[in-house]
Amino acid sequence: MTTEGQVHLVGAGPGDPELLTLRAHRLLSEADVIVYDRLVSPEIMALIPAATRRISVGKATSHHTMPQEAINRLLVDLARQGLNVVRLKGGDPLIFGRGSEEAEALRDAGIAHDYVPGITAAQGAASTTGVPLTHRGLATGVRYVTGHRAADAALDLDWDGLARPDTTLVIYMGAATMAAIAAELIRRGRPADLPAMAVASATTPREARVVSTLSQVAEEAAGLEAPVLFIVGEVVSLCAAQPLPELLADLPMVANA
Amino acid sequence: MTTEGQVHLVGAGPGDPELLTLRAHRLLSEADVIVYDRLVSPEIMALIPAATRRISVGKATSHHTMPQEAINRLLVDLARQGLNVVRLKGGDPLIFGRGSEEAEALRDAGIAHDYVPGITAAQGAASTTGVPLTHRGLATGVRYVTGHRAADAALDLDWDGLARPDTTLVIYMGAATMAAIAAELIRRGRPADLPAMAVASATTPREARVVSTLSQVAEEAAGLEAPVLFIVGEVVSLCAAQPLPELLADLPMVANA
Repeated sequence: MTTEGQVHLVGAGPGDPELLTLRAHRLLSEADVIVYDRLVSPEIMALIPAATRRISVGKATSHHTMPQEAINRLLVDLARQGLNVVRLKGGDPLIFGRGSEEAEALRDAGIAHDYVPGITAAQGAASTTGVPLTHRGLATGVRYVTGHRAADAALDLDWDGLARPDTTLVIYMGAATMAAIAAELIRRGRPADLPAMAVASATTPREARVVSTLSQVAEEAAGLEAPVLFIVGEVVSLCAAQPLPELLADLPMVANA
Repeated sequence: MTTEGQVHLVGAGPGDPELLTLRAHRLLSEADVIVYDRLVSPEIMALIPAATRRISVGKATSHHTMPQEAINRLLVDLARQGLNVVRLKGGDPLIFGRGSEEAEALRDAGIAHDYVPGITAAQGAASTTGVPLTHRGLATGVRYVTGHRAADAALDLDWDGLARPDTTLVIYMGAATMAAIAAELIRRGRPADLPAMAVASATTPREARVVSTLSQVAEEAAGLEAPVLFIVGEVVSLCAAQPLPELLADLPMVANA
């Protein structure tokens, strides 16, 4: 079969395979080759038909196995071979996923491509912990920021905006910087005992949580394995009240297309 | 079959049935009764087995067909009848979905319940327009706020934080208030010609968009049918570059469980 190659930029969601969208699930079964990140859970990789070619391009913090520029070239090259490519990313490709950078490279090369959104880590952690991202009387909005920064750069965050009491603050990739973020928020007037939570590998069998306070959460979360997500705000006070949902219901293998 | 009743608080995503999660899709096929909002698309309602009981509880802005308190009681009552209840909400139940209020009522009544996250409208609109919610050099974070307010209340937003140039701003339910929000943001220093976009019914066949500027977007979006989502920020400049993805691939009916 010789067809035009194409690239689907697909969000894999937070880890639980049942949180894939129907479209992501279908595209995985139809793909010729899957280019995936370290943030895609092994449970999701296990769904991919055994015969499907798969290429790891790393991308966990501090493990840049392939620079973004090389990933862009790889996607273009695979599509030019006429392949149906799924570029599979943890979470959502357009929220800290750099999907739009890959799309720019594909557009410049004239390669057909589209996006499939995925459940982002904040939503996964909210669903298993019962911590809402918005809640009447506690949070009228939510804000996602990244704690990741270039090796020698200072964190350049909107500290006063972040310190607003009515907004849930979610920090992605903050394991290395959460202590500094918390200290600065407290300096700007947020209470040291503001509820704060760290969640690692939400929605997978490896999910681990620390429910704590703004001043303590970074230290208490030090033992959690990456990726760790921090959620800060009054909404975290609703956490303990929620039961753990059933995780990872049995899921049939994707049929080979 | 007499079992303990339970309630699944399920996000239906932005409208395209293929953007349901696998879990949401499964739970819809297993439910005894589905309690749904106006924000759930007709395409998704069409997937529900014909024999499954369904109860509409409205909840589009200005159509509060059932007060939240009555919805809470309904869910408790249905579960106490031993039914497997899916409470289906547009988007994600924990992002402007009031899922956590319903969960509190269920917890108080001792009813088993869990959450299933859904693709929220901002992610749906991002995926079809190609506008990333974060993008290196343009937006280091994203913030979701609601433009909805009680009939006689002033908008109480963190104006200085909202006016930050490095954060993508997404306004849910802002059709009635976007003009006032834009005017205030401009007064606080955001450029009148900042890229801004309105997207209605993203990911459905009724999707409609206006790509404009902060000062013009509310007026130009006046003809769009609710729900309308506004996205404000430099990332909107990436919009026109992206092709429309294929929408609504053929999807088999959910088998009756």
